[in-house]
Amino acid sequence: MDYGAEAIKRHRASHGKVSIAPKMKVETIEDLSIAYTPGVAAVCMAIAKDKAESFALTNRANTVAVVTDGSAVLGLGNIGPEAAMPVMEGKSILFKGLAGIDAIPICLATQNTQAIIQIVRALAPSFGGINLEDIAAPRCFDIEDGLQDLGIPVFHDDQHGTSVVVLGSLINALQLVGKKFSDAKIVFSGAGAGAIASARLLMDYGARNIVLVDSQGVIHRHRTDLTSIKRQMLEITNPEGVSGDLAAAMRGSDVFIGLSVGGLVSQQMVRSMAKGAIVLAAANPVPEIYPDQAKEAGAAIVGTGRSDFPNQINNSLGFPGIFRGALDVRATRITTAMKLAAAEALAGLVEEPTTERIIPWSLDPKVVPAVSKAVAQAWAVE
Amino acid sequence: MDYGAEAIKRHRASHGKVSIAPKMKVETIEDLSIAYTPGVAAVCMAIAKDKAESFALTNRANTVAVVTDGSAVLGLGNIGPEAAMPVMEGKSILFKGLAGIDAIPICLATQNTQAIIQIVRALAPSFGGINLEDIAAPRCFDIEDGLQDLGIPVFHDDQHGTSVVVLGSLINALQLVGKKFSDAKIVFSGAGAGAIASARLLMDYGARNIVLVDSQGVIHRHRTDLTSIKRQMLEITNPEGVSGDLAAAMRGSDVFIGLSVGGLVSQQMVRSMAKGAIVLAAANPVPEIYPDQAKEAGAAIVGTGRSDFPNQINNSLGFPGIFRGALDVRATRITTAMKLAAAEALAGLVEEPTTERIIPWSLDPKVVPAVSKAVAQAWAVE
Repeated sequence: MDYGAEAIKRHRASHGKVSIAPKMKVETIEDLSIAYTPGVAAVCMAIAKDKAESFALTNRANTVAVVTDGSAVLGLGNIGPEAAMPVMEGKSILFKGLAGIDAIPICLATQNTQAIIQIVRALAPSFGGINLEDIAAPRCFDIEDGLQDLGIPVFHDDQHGTSVVVLGSLINALQLVGKKFSDAKIVFSGAGAGAIASARLLMDYGARNIVLVDSQGVIHRHRTDLTSIKRQMLEITNPEGVSGDLAAAMRGSDVFIGLSVGGLVSQQMVRSMAKGAIVLAAANPVPEIYPDQAKEAGAAIVGTGRSDFPNQINNSLGFPGIFRGALDVRATRITTAMKLAAAEALAGLVEEPTTERIIPWSLDPKVVPAVSKAVAQAWAVE
Repeated sequence: MDYGAEAIKRHRASHGKVSIAPKMKVETIEDLSIAYTPGVAAVCMAIAKDKAESFALTNRANTVAVVTDGSAVLGLGNIGPEAAMPVMEGKSILFKGLAGIDAIPICLATQNTQAIIQIVRALAPSFGGINLEDIAAPRCFDIEDGLQDLGIPVFHDDQHGTSVVVLGSLINALQLVGKKFSDAKIVFSGAGAGAIASARLLMDYGARNIVLVDSQGVIHRHRTDLTSIKRQMLEITNPEGVSGDLAAAMRGSDVFIGLSVGGLVSQQMVRSMAKGAIVLAAANPVPEIYPDQAKEAGAAIVGTGRSDFPNQINNSLGFPGIFRGALDVRATRITTAMKLAAAEALAGLVEEPTTERIIPWSLDPKVVPAVSKAVAQAWAVE
């Protein structure tokens, strides 16, 4: 099927994907008097007296804003707020379909860091959580950091959703090949939001030898072109002082994690990896290397971002359950412990991991209950 | 029934009134590939190429933001964004129930005029229209004025929704008592957003002798305490140079329009009005004077803001049809001609007006089709 053509046809027929469904009817004067004036005044005053009542008397506790500035949409880049909306609507129907969460897509006509922070702060009273989405690095880091005191979870999915699914996959994959996080040499192709957050979470889980590679090569101390966040990452990565290109970094490595651009990895590069190599080539829709090629070159386990191959590294395994759990316990932040718990829950859902199944299927109905429970418990012991 | 207690009970049971309903399903990998990645990329690129496609390929053309800063909520005053949400959710379910419009309630944690303008500008790409709601005067005027170039309708309902319903009521009422707009002396109790917009729209329709009265008395040229907007109104109102209090203004007047505070008007004040007096006492929930008292004092026609008396001056007669019409033709503003057309449509819906029926019932299913058609036609000839 030509998914693009079919998508345009269906989106045009239905005018997008999201609509509002009232939870009370307004058919009679009595309905009006309860849902609206005069009865609603008592509801307003109850919240004015105790703001926490907004979580009980409005839909706030189940509502998340999906906020983007349209600057890094899918692999399409800086296409602007109007063009970003189909992705945000898609996110919204995934939130609802997978986790029962009411997600409001909001595409902003500004790409100014301080303006976005100010806007999200102003929006916060209407929402139980904020899902930041498809905002370019390094702006995405500053925006998320600047909003952690809001009192509701603010979570950049391209960073942490990705990191949770990558870690969940790797827990099972490394176990299958009989290696430990603390020993594995892990190479990232890509040093954007997803790669940086994943590298950090893997280290929180015990990884010690991570090398990040961006479009200019390995991130090492002689590079003079590094952004502030990449310089920060240098302090905790590349302990062996590797330099050169992606091929150099991959030589002898145990794990390749691709969050970059399709087609970057050759069979020769996979052949140069250590025995029992794990290749998670998550660029979409074209992976860094296709599974059949990677396996032919000796990879033991291969995952991609695509649904038509085994082991799909897909954010929809993460954000619905993470927000469900956080909203359920009214967490005020998403902590590292919650992300680690989510990753372990994902890994644990695969009862008998095999090289063809290191992570659950994206639409597996067991995922959200397991992840949300783990996340809620991790918050409770925080 | 104790509407307040019942409202709290029901709001607590359902956690408010608004939820999200997906318009596409995501049950299979194929669904995902069409609603989300990879298929959605083609939809994004179609909009990136032509922004107008956002009205066809997303829900934008049917989506309105209901935006408040929580500063003038119902008659409750400045109760803040969290406490304003039950009213905004109420507005949302009226939008959906009456006009099929998907309205997103957004309560902002700022009351700064420039910040609100900046935020609404940033939100605009996600919406087909903006309904400003319960924002205190005079800030509401500056905010609305500052957003008229957005390319989508920005409409402060407390001003213009009120003005349309007041004019619609008065068209039938004045005809019933055999008087003309150009001759009638019309007194407003209240000089806030609704009163000022109504006074302006009545003048656009032909009224010439309007007197505004605020809490300090008649707005006349010797007042030294007038805000900028009230000074502007002085230039076009009070042609006879009336001064004094509300009682003085009402003496000999033909029409009283109350958009102020319950209980302000005595029977003596109604007795002092001209023969065939029209009293629209719209303060809520307690009117400026109750209908039985006003009639006993000689009023020919009485309306209130309440649903349990005849002639309810209710904004829900206005905003759903006005936005429906504007969205249907993708109007970029709500013009005076559109408001006048909406008022005439409302008046015209009452086939044989009587003193007990000058305006349709709030939930009359004929209202939105008639108002939206009139509004759309008025835009077409603009």
